[in-house]
Parts: sequence; structure tokens; C-alpha cells
Amino acid sequence: MLEVIVQVFTDHGYDASSLEMIARRLGLSKSAVYYHFSSKAEMLEIALERALGELERVFDEAESQPGDAVSRIGYIVRHAVLVACERRQYLTLLLRLHGNSDVELRALERRRVLTARLRGTFEAARDEGSLRDDLDPGLAARFTFGLVNSLVEWYRPDGPIDPEALADALLSYVRTGLRLDETDFR
Amino acid sequence: MLEVIVQVFTDHGYDASSLEMIARRLGLSKSAVYYHFSSKAEMLEIALERALGELERVFDEAESQPGDAVSRIGYIVRHAVLVACERRQYLTLLLRLHGNSDVELRALERRRVLTARLRGTFEAARDEGSLRDDLDPGLAARFTFGLVNSLVEWYRPDGPIDPEALADALLSYVRTGLRLDETDFR
Repeated sequence: MLEVIVQVFTDHGYDASSLEMIARRLGLSKSAVYYHFSSKAEMLEIALERALGELERVFDEAESQPGDAVSRIGYIVRHAVLVACERRQYLTLLLRLHGNSDVELRALERRRVLTARLRGTFEAARDEGSLRDDLDPGLAARFTFGLVNSLVEWYRPDGPIDPEALADALLSYVRTGLRLDETDFR
Repeated sequence: MLEVIVQVFTDHGYDASSLEMIARRLGLSKSAVYYHFSSKAEMLEIALERALGELERVFDEAESQPGDAVSRIGYIVRHAVLVACERRQYLTLLLRLHGNSDVELRALERRRVLTARLRGTFEAARDEGSLRDDLDPGLAARFTFGLVNSLVEWYRPDGPIDPEALADALLSYVRTGLRLDETDFR
């Protein structure tokens, strides 16, 4: 049921999605929908939790692992890719929020906290010498989330690549994807 | 005028944006808006052209340059970053399309063509030995566009980093951002 609702939000945008549209897509009356959810905002909140809660869990796990910062980054990237693949619809919804309501603003704040946690891990990697000196940890954190988040645009579970292989490829791309070192192009 | 319209589309989603909202935000009557644009679809088409036309120009220029495929990729990435920074609102609009109208579907088709052109360039890079053997050119193309496109989420012209420095950082990140080579994390 939530999956269908999220699909309506994604197809038309949260603002443009009405309870009427949702009820029609579910083949239910509006009162039947109200039996399950008290409001559109509640649907959104539960759906966003499925993405945010998982990502927060990945960070908690990474921070409880032994090992250095660079291996924590590897863990976070791999598992964030898996979340992006497995919870694609919910992450898509999170990424397309406009911030026009309280539920949206709270979710965007949790997203900012995750970015700050990733930046902290990149700062630790720089301090231990496993990040290029010329790369700012804050930018590296933003690039990393940008790259992982972009997967929702095209990854499909019935496509030719599975989530683990995608995580491997993404990590390859980031570490030495291109042999560009000697080229200085403008 | 177009910038304000694009902001309305971005704040509420194209589907949820009405001519009334647009007129109100512009401080004009609906008929005054109609004097400039015959429809909401026309506004969208002109706005999308500002992103797509520029990106197509970047590819045309890259293909007319001397040099190998890896330097063409460097050129495309650098200039696509500049487009993402300078035409941020228009690119954001393109990235958030739902595909519910003809104008949207045509724009999404042009986006697909650009991805195919980038994949072709990555295939040429692989053939000349400047791409890691274990990285699929199609994935590399998608990752690259994903990374560049994600800049619109947070880049702001009044922020601390300028577009050229951002292009440098993004290229650093992709080539050997992390010294992860010896780590095999699960």
C-alpha cells in the first residue's frame, strides 16, 4: 500500500498528489485510505523513515566497526548503495522533497546530519593520510552522496547489474576510475 | 521572467504549478503572462533548452577537439560542471521531470542521447587503455553524469567555492579520490 502511495508522490510530486488520486490508484474509497493513514503528511513521514532510518543505521554500524576511517567510508559507500537499490522509491521521494511542510523540513534536516557525519569521516580519512591532500573532505562527502543518490535515477531491480556488483563498480570508479593524472585539460 | 517561472516549477513541481501561481509570483495578470508565453508547456520547453542546449554544445565542442578520449572526457566533465553551476535552475528542472507530457518526454529523450554520447566516449577511453579494465564504460558514464548532476542540489553561486575550483575537485575525486586500493571491505 505504501509503495503505491509513494509511486503517486513520485509521479506527480508530493504537493500535486491528492488523497483522491491516491485512493483511485489504490482502488479504495477515501475513507478506507483514512483508516490506514490519518493524513498525506503521515504517509510521507512513514515513507521517508524507510530511507532515512536505513541510512542512519548504516552510519551507526560503520562507526561501531573496528578499522580506520577509509575502511569506514568503504563500508558506508557499499551499504548506502545497497540502500539506494533496495529502497529506491523511498530514497527518490526523499531526494525530490521541496521543503514545503514540517515533515519535509524535518527529513531534510536529518539528511543534512547524514552529510555532516560523512564529512566527519572524510576529515578523519584526511587526518590519517588516506585522502588526496588536494581534496576537501566536505566536497568529497557531497560528491559521494551525490554519486550514490544518483543511482535511483536509473537503477532497476530487474536490470542487468545486481546491487553488490554496482557497489564494487562505484568504489572502483571513485578510487582510480580514470587514468587522468597526467592530463591537464581546460 | 523565465527564472521566476522556473523557480515556481522547482518549488512546487511542474504538475502542481498553475498559471495563477506563476502570475502571482511575477506580480502580473494571467493575460500579461500569456502575452509572453502561449502555455505552461512552452515555458517549460524554453527553460529546458537552456540546460540541454548547453550540454549538447559541450559534447559538440569536445568531439571537435584534438586529443584522445580521456582528454575529451576531462573536457566534458569540466564544462558540464560549469553548466551545472551556471544554469543550475534549468538543470534542476530537467532532473526533476516526471515525464507526464510531450515536452517532458522529448527532453528526457535528449538526456538519454547525451548519456549515450558519454558512454561512447568512455568506450573509446577503454579501447585506448585509459579506463580501468574492471569498470564498465556504461556505468562509468552514468556515474559521471550522476556526480555532475548532483551538484545542483547544493552548489550556490554565493557559496565559498567557484565553478572552476569545483570542476578541479570533482576531477580529483574521480581519478584517485580515495586510496582504497588495498582495502577489501564488505
